[in-house]
Amino acid sequence: QIDSARLWGTIHETAKFGATPKGGVRRLTLGPEDKQVRDWFRKACDAAGLEVQVDTLGSMFGLRKGRDMSKAPVGLGSHLDTQPTGGKYDGVLGTLAALEVVRTLNDAGIETETPICICNWTNEEGSRFAPAMMASAAYVGDFTTDDILSRRDIDGVTVGEALDSIGYRGESPVGRQKFSGFVELHIEQGPILEAENKTIGVVDSGQGVLWYDGKIIGFESHAGSTPMPLRRDALATLSEIVLAMEAAAKKHGPKAVGTIGEAVIANPSRNVIPGEIAFTVDCRSADAGIMDTLDRDLRAAIAEISARRKVDVQLDLVWRKPPTHFDPKLVDAVEGAAKMLGYSHRRITSGAGHDACNLNTKIPAAMVFVPCKDGISHNELEDATQSDCAAGANVLMHTVLALAGV
Amino acid sequence: QIDSARLWGTIHETAKFGATPKGGVRRLTLGPEDKQVRDWFRKACDAAGLEVQVDTLGSMFGLRKGRDMSKAPVGLGSHLDTQPTGGKYDGVLGTLAALEVVRTLNDAGIETETPICICNWTNEEGSRFAPAMMASAAYVGDFTTDDILSRRDIDGVTVGEALDSIGYRGESPVGRQKFSGFVELHIEQGPILEAENKTIGVVDSGQGVLWYDGKIIGFESHAGSTPMPLRRDALATLSEIVLAMEAAAKKHGPKAVGTIGEAVIANPSRNVIPGEIAFTVDCRSADAGIMDTLDRDLRAAIAEISARRKVDVQLDLVWRKPPTHFDPKLVDAVEGAAKMLGYSHRRITSGAGHDACNLNTKIPAAMVFVPCKDGISHNELEDATQSDCAAGANVLMHTVLALAGV
Ligand SMILES: NC(=O)NCCC(=O)O
Ligand SMILES: NC(=O)NCCC(=O)O
Repeated sequence: QIDSARLWGTIHETAKFGATPKGGVRRLTLGPEDKQVRDWFRKACDAAGLEVQVDTLGSMFGLRKGRDMSKAPVGLGSHLDTQPTGGKYDGVLGTLAALEVVRTLNDAGIETETPICICNWTNEEGSRFAPAMMASAAYVGDFTTDDILSRRDIDGVTVGEALDSIGYRGESPVGRQKFSGFVELHIEQGPILEAENKTIGVVDSGQGVLWYDGKIIGFESHAGSTPMPLRRDALATLSEIVLAMEAAAKKHGPKAVGTIGEAVIANPSRNVIPGEIAFTVDCRSADAGIMDTLDRDLRAAIAEISARRKVDVQLDLVWRKPPTHFDPKLVDAVEGAAKMLGYSHRRITSGAGHDACNLNTKIPAAMVFVPCKDGISHNELEDATQSDCAAGANVLMHTVLALAGV
Repeated sequence: QIDSARLWGTIHETAKFGATPKGGVRRLTLGPEDKQVRDWFRKACDAAGLEVQVDTLGSMFGLRKGRDMSKAPVGLGSHLDTQPTGGKYDGVLGTLAALEVVRTLNDAGIETETPICICNWTNEEGSRFAPAMMASAAYVGDFTTDDILSRRDIDGVTVGEALDSIGYRGESPVGRQKFSGFVELHIEQGPILEAENKTIGVVDSGQGVLWYDGKIIGFESHAGSTPMPLRRDALATLSEIVLAMEAAAKKHGPKAVGTIGEAVIANPSRNVIPGEIAFTVDCRSADAGIMDTLDRDLRAAIAEISARRKVDVQLDLVWRKPPTHFDPKLVDAVEGAAKMLGYSHRRITSGAGHDACNLNTKIPAAMVFVPCKDGISHNELEDATQSDCAAGANVLMHTVLALAGV
């Protein structure tokens, strides 16, 4: 059993890096607060006797030796970056639980056959730089390192510049650190476990994701003197697109979601009809066929709306992540650990994307979920109980021990 | 006849203060570019022998003596501030045509019975500080000077601070400068004169205006893992409000307009359902009954949408300007001047608000419109011809001469 109080303590200790007045965390990837938590994490890894490597995209790896160093280690961990108004658990729980597993093994003097390696992946959230789960995507070769290094945030700062500014552009080439498998603990970020009163979610699949960048070019004109029929209003156009995306997702019941998260009017003024808007779209399903339908429906709606309103709408797909089917053997290992420890559990699909979803395309991976209050995440009110967090960390530890061998 | 080339020259000379790459002007009220154009205007007034006064809200008055100095002068002019992406004519034409009238009278050695006074009113546009036509509203007592001085822009700067920062908080109390009448020349900012091939619009009325500040409080949550039925999406809510405002205005055919010009998502992120949005509403009609209907329809739509979506929507009326009916005698004077000069003309309602609309509540006022290209205004592409501008200035001069007496 891991040390529940110690794990809880580290979660709340690191929550001060970027703490918000409402009790959440604002720790955008590669910003100053991310540097603070990274420095803390590196020191904690050093103190736990781990050999720390940082790769050229800033992902951090802390290696704990095993008896057979010819074997690729079992990976465990998550991420320490947060949303602009994020919570204390998303990513943090999985990363600090990995640290807690190492501390527990150290305290108990347990040596594993296969080495284990705890990870903090760069930019999982995707709110400063797109796509989300950026570093693990580069790790499995979905993007080249150079491509990722040149991505820009809204202020034009590249990933490379951001890494340099906090001193976390590491030496280790992306992909150099090998893994024989990867296990990630995370809060569910949805309402199912809580509603069904289950402690552990054995994650067997994950939704696919479509991300788009959109731009609407209408025509600025005077709000008072431009007759309604002559308008080419970019915001009215966006409004129809938002509602069309919502309707297209709802058609599939619980099997799809669709969201416009960002929309920025260029040069806004009260008495000017909006002429230009940049926006983003996020839509998802665990069913690849439904993903295709969402894409088709969205494009068809935009074609109809833009023609009728005589505005120009550009829609660029910037990321397509197919649905994830986690490795059956690792999923069974997670389930076995939950059973062995006596926790109530169920199989579950992840609504959110995770680094484990990317890694699963190249190495066997699986995930452990624990409930979060009211299913709320990406919100400063995100909450989880100490005992659920500890339960998740125990399942993580025993899954890893089953994979690494004692 | 005024000097058409000289007028055209001043319009293009002052367009350099805040010139944008697309050929428009960005000269927000009381900003550095506004100071530049004010300094230019003051020098031009001095050179034309006018006695310049600046009031405590920064409005500028250039007095030209008449034979009977016991009479309140006839006012003429407009404003020199612009929209964030504004054009070269909106406000500028009326202010510089007033200067051109003085220059023409000086050159011809014409003395008027009643003095005349050319004006540059502060913050007509209303995009930096609300409401629009701020200084003329204070002039007629719709707001106190202290109230206006404490209004803040989006960065929290007050009108008072902005005035001090460019040295234009004048000595003259607001309202001290009296007028016996006021005439304003302006581009139409709508498509009617051009469509009907008329040179002069004899403005007999103006739309009333309702301005609101709105705020939507939904709930931020994860775009991937939050089921559609559990969402409280602030942007989907706004989208319905935008379309409801549009429909409410369209119901009245050409008799109403409605616009959401500003909408800002708090802490936006691609994979976060928008939780909070601030927005503004501008709706107008020349019919006070329709204005009431627009207000009722908007509030009813918001009540229904917010209840159904379980979000909170606040809507505060920040400005209500009733419809304007310009002084019949002054309207006749404008029409008489247009007729006498042989310009094609028609009576017209102003879609936009103007300082003359405010002044008309206390002193007889009227307006002269000239066509603008495709009816476009509040856009960098705003355009008008030299001959139409000159025609408008001639009508302005002869209206003023008829009122002031020679
Ligand atoms: N787990 C999580 O919140 N990931 C962020 C990426 C996403 O799914 O939008
Ligand atoms: N004339 C003009 O554009 N005024 C700005 C105020 C408004 O009508 O919105």
